[in-house]
Amino acid sequence: MNTVAFIGLGHMGQPMALNLVKAGVTVKVFDLVPEAMAELTEQGALMATSACGAAAGADVVVSMLPAGRHVRGLYLGQEGQPGLLDVVAKETLLIDCSTIDAKSASEVAKVAASKGIEFVDAPVSGGTGGAVAGTLTFICGGTDKGFEQAKATLSIMGSHIFHAGGAGAGQIAKICNNMLLSVLMIGTSESLQLGIDHGLDPSVLSEIMKVSSGGNWTLEKYNPCPDVMPNVPSSHDYQGGFMVDLMIKDLGLSQEAALSSNSSTPMGALARSLYVNHGRKGHGQLDFSSIFEEFNKKG
Amino acid sequence: MNTVAFIGLGHMGQPMALNLVKAGVTVKVFDLVPEAMAELTEQGALMATSACGAAAGADVVVSMLPAGRHVRGLYLGQEGQPGLLDVVAKETLLIDCSTIDAKSASEVAKVAASKGIEFVDAPVSGGTGGAVAGTLTFICGGTDKGFEQAKATLSIMGSHIFHAGGAGAGQIAKICNNMLLSVLMIGTSESLQLGIDHGLDPSVLSEIMKVSSGGNWTLEKYNPCPDVMPNVPSSHDYQGGFMVDLMIKDLGLSQEAALSSNSSTPMGALARSLYVNHGRKGHGQLDFSSIFEEFNKKG
Amino acid sequence: MNTVAFIGLGHMGQPMALNLVKAGVTVKVFDLVPEAMAELTEQGALMATSACGAAAGADVVVSMLPAGRHVRGLYLGQEGQPGLLDVVAKETLLIDCSTIDAKSASEVAKVAASKGIEFVDAPVSGGTGGAVAGTLTFICGGTDKGFEQAKATLSIMGSHIFHAGGAGAGQIAKICNNMLLSVLMIGTSESLQLGIDHGLDPSVLSEIMKVSSGGNWTLEKYNPCPDVMPNVPSSHDYQGGFMVDLMIKDLGLSQEAALSSNSSTPMGALARSLYVNHGRKGHGQLDFSSIFEEFNKKG
Amino acid sequence: MNTVAFIGLGHMGQPMALNLVKAGVTVKVFDLVPEAMAELTEQGALMATSACGAAAGADVVVSMLPAGRHVRGLYLGQEGQPGLLDVVAKETLLIDCSTIDAKSASEVAKVAASKGIEFVDAPVSGGTGGAVAGTLTFICGGTDKGFEQAKATLSIMGSHIFHAGGAGAGQIAKICNNMLLSVLMIGTSESLQLGIDHGLDPSVLSEIMKVSSGGNWTLEKYNPCPDVMPNVPSSHDYQGGFMVDLMIKDLGLSQEAALSSNSSTPMGALARSLYVNHGRKGHGQLDFSSIFEEFNKKG
Repeated sequence: MNTVAFIGLGHMGQPMALNLVKAGVTVKVFDLVPEAMAELTEQGALMATSACGAAAGADVVVSMLPAGRHVRGLYLGQEGQPGLLDVVAKETLLIDCSTIDAKSASEVAKVAASKGIEFVDAPVSGGTGGAVAGTLTFICGGTDKGFEQAKATLSIMGSHIFHAGGAGAGQIAKICNNMLLSVLMIGTSESLQLGIDHGLDPSVLSEIMKVSSGGNWTLEKYNPCPDVMPNVPSSHDYQGGFMVDLMIKDLGLSQEAALSSNSSTPMGALARSLYVNHGRKGHGQLDFSSIFEEFNKKG
Repeated sequence: MNTVAFIGLGHMGQPMALNLVKAGVTVKVFDLVPEAMAELTEQGALMATSACGAAAGADVVVSMLPAGRHVRGLYLGQEGQPGLLDVVAKETLLIDCSTIDAKSASEVAKVAASKGIEFVDAPVSGGTGGAVAGTLTFICGGTDKGFEQAKATLSIMGSHIFHAGGAGAGQIAKICNNMLLSVLMIGTSESLQLGIDHGLDPSVLSEIMKVSSGGNWTLEKYNPCPDVMPNVPSSHDYQGGFMVDLMIKDLGLSQEAALSSNSSTPMGALARSLYVNHGRKGHGQLDFSSIFEEFNKKG
Repeated sequence: MNTVAFIGLGHMGQPMALNLVKAGVTVKVFDLVPEAMAELTEQGALMATSACGAAAGADVVVSMLPAGRHVRGLYLGQEGQPGLLDVVAKETLLIDCSTIDAKSASEVAKVAASKGIEFVDAPVSGGTGGAVAGTLTFICGGTDKGFEQAKATLSIMGSHIFHAGGAGAGQIAKICNNMLLSVLMIGTSESLQLGIDHGLDPSVLSEIMKVSSGGNWTLEKYNPCPDVMPNVPSSHDYQGGFMVDLMIKDLGLSQEAALSSNSSTPMGALARSLYVNHGRKGHGQLDFSSIFEEFNKKG
Repeated sequence: MNTVAFIGLGHMGQPMALNLVKAGVTVKVFDLVPEAMAELTEQGALMATSACGAAAGADVVVSMLPAGRHVRGLYLGQEGQPGLLDVVAKETLLIDCSTIDAKSASEVAKVAASKGIEFVDAPVSGGTGGAVAGTLTFICGGTDKGFEQAKATLSIMGSHIFHAGGAGAGQIAKICNNMLLSVLMIGTSESLQLGIDHGLDPSVLSEIMKVSSGGNWTLEKYNPCPDVMPNVPSSHDYQGGFMVDLMIKDLGLSQEAALSSNSSTPMGALARSLYVNHGRKGHGQLDFSSIFEEFNKKG
């Protein structure tokens, strides 16, 4: 049976690690905030006093951190401190589930490869709900071997596991998807409001577009217009779900990627500006479908 | 058994009328271009010498014309000539399948209503392929009574028949859908190219996004990247399908609608400008998924 | 000495007509709202009881109306009533100072030309301030002869008089200018805020860009950032000036024009959507430089 | 009399250094490409064999390099090699004229400040023409003392020298300006083409907008429509001037800055995407006013 070191126990990391514990995996946890480890140790996880301590002897390391600089710090070391890549055994499988810039992911993967260590970037989607339920989607970048090895651990925490390509490909695929999602959300919002402004019932219009060529995920699962679907954020004052601030973060990552590859993303770039305007007005904590409110005022 | 007058036998009207003939309906046809009627009369349709002549005594009138001015001319009359609304019996059901501006549709509907005649605006989607196969989608505006009556005739020519709302609602719903479609197409194109620019395989990326929150009709049915799907225009030099020039027409209608209702459509308006740029460079006859080519150059 | 008929005495028309009166011109006024004529008759204008009555015997007709349908109604007639073109003498010079769609302007001009009457479209810029001060800018469309004749009257009400081209060209040139103005305003706003977000003093940044390649009218005369310039709307809670709702009207006219000529205006179309969002939130009566407030929130 | 070390002798650096030589300044030059130093030494400059060698004993160091990583490498050192900040005397004035990301500029400035050395970021505008003529514009960031000291040297190479604020402010002000410039250029292009599409003469329309509220630098100095102005790139097949690829670089820097400060720049972001599309089609070496060609096709 494997031992997993889990580094980073925030809103996502905590329930993810808990699912490993519940599945009978030996889990050693570490977080800079000791309180974050309390519930997990109550449930049977072992508490480490440092990231390196958690990783020592583990078969698999899973990390879930906020940004590229944290991931680089963890694996490559920082301020004179060694990183995991300096201390773990060659057989250790490293899985980073953070959503970070592709450049950082590739940089860590490159160093890992130079040491013969498998490193898989495996950003998730599905939110805290999916993390709790163990139904997350993982989009992985790495070698075929690394991906196959990672599946065993990831399948305990999620229900969809994709292999997007080589090192960094998981990050790229995720931000491509989330950039497209933001475009779907805004395009759907303005289309629905255009219909409403002409007297159409948004439920009827949604139903028509959903099964026509305008069909997309937001109409299927996440209608931004209040009271069209019962159990979505738009019908509950845009509470819960995927926050505007997180969408802005992901759109920033997609723009960074577009800058580095000299890519043109007119829709994605516009979506970012509209979301930033929305967030800066104080709506950063609302669900991202609240962008609908930028369109539905009566004036 | 009903008699149907069919006015306007272009690329769409001809196969639509033919399906009525084949179903055993008595069809009286009229088009300004006599040749357009030849094939239909060979198949058993009756040829009229004027629109009013075709409509005289018909139970149902179906029209399929290029633009609002033609529809207004047909039903309201022009240059001193009477329109159909001046001559048909009160019981005649009028169905206009043209894609036109909502204002013209509402104007004709209003005059019809003042005379107690049912008028249904029923723009189609599905292209010439759907017209031939009898699998078109009709998006209808009109009274409940008019809609119910229209179903019998429309179901011979199509497989999906929606009731979007009152007079003009069919046109609005259609252009909302097509505006959204253009946004899906461009958003998907730039997301795929961003992935490609970072070394991802577009087939793999498409597969991932299709079942994730970026999922949309273009990924399901109409991938814009060549050789990802076999039987779509992008894999055949963007031949066939739904022409750029027709998308520009529909985006123009959606912008007209947005102007009249003081609606904001940043994504739809941007899509129109990008499609116009594309069309003006000489790509107006290509399928609308060819917008992908604006992004995939290497520079 | 000429007699001028002045039709339409709103916020702009009233002070414009007054300047003619003060200059000693014999002015016959008409407005559907009798009160609008009171101040002018006190100052010496003659009151007419209809537009045709005002125009009868006048050498010059000046009209200042809200929209294309009013202008078409006035000159071409409506609901069975004759229009000015049915009643005025062939020598009468017609000058329409309204800002309307180019199509209406061309339509009226065409009928006028068919009767041998000179018609000049002469939309203004400069606001009520310029109307009172007699410093308006007139951008004219019409024949060389019509333009030369119109100058005498227009120069009493304004200080800049341009000849943009043939019939309708005045309207087109004005909306091209105002579309560009909206782009300058938003581009300047976001550039200033980007600097502010990085700690720059907006006054210093404005000063630098004004004399560099970012230089434009808004930096010269109308800085959107509060307290950079003393006597502009941004330094007075965005009161006065050119209202957001009027900018939205002009951007609508420019988009109508772009639709009719199959032109691509990505920046102008985006500007319209941003202004509509802004206006619908309740800011329609603020000066158009208040678009800056869409960017300057702290979040 | 001062001694100036000049590091980086590309298309801009070479003529800038030459102006110093011609003004009688003792100039020590260094470039990784020896040939780049040949002309300067012929004119009297002293050739150094390394950047540190050039800087040793110099009163002022001027650097002109392609990107942030080169500037960081030069001043902070790289791959175990010392940087200028490790070797120069405390009294040396450092002036970096490169256009780079604000973050790199601030990083170098911070290290310099910690050692008590004045560092001024002083990106230029004016192109190679301005470099040769000695009429460049310098936009500086740094302390008041550093700025005052830098003026003596900069005024030999340029005619406008601005102080935008503290460390990094020169870079920010420059990219704000250039982002705004790109918006002016595209907004002007689409406005001119809208007029042309309606039959207006672009020269007449330009003249009107130039003195109206659409007035901006591109209409004054750099009209994008061929044959409106004689001595600009648009009238010479878009040769010379400021290349599309360089505008894309600057727009990338402005978007990086917007990402780091969570700023919304809808116009600037759209401009970048349009320029990238244009550049990737093979127009990267044309002058940036060639964006007009994206709009002026007839279709």
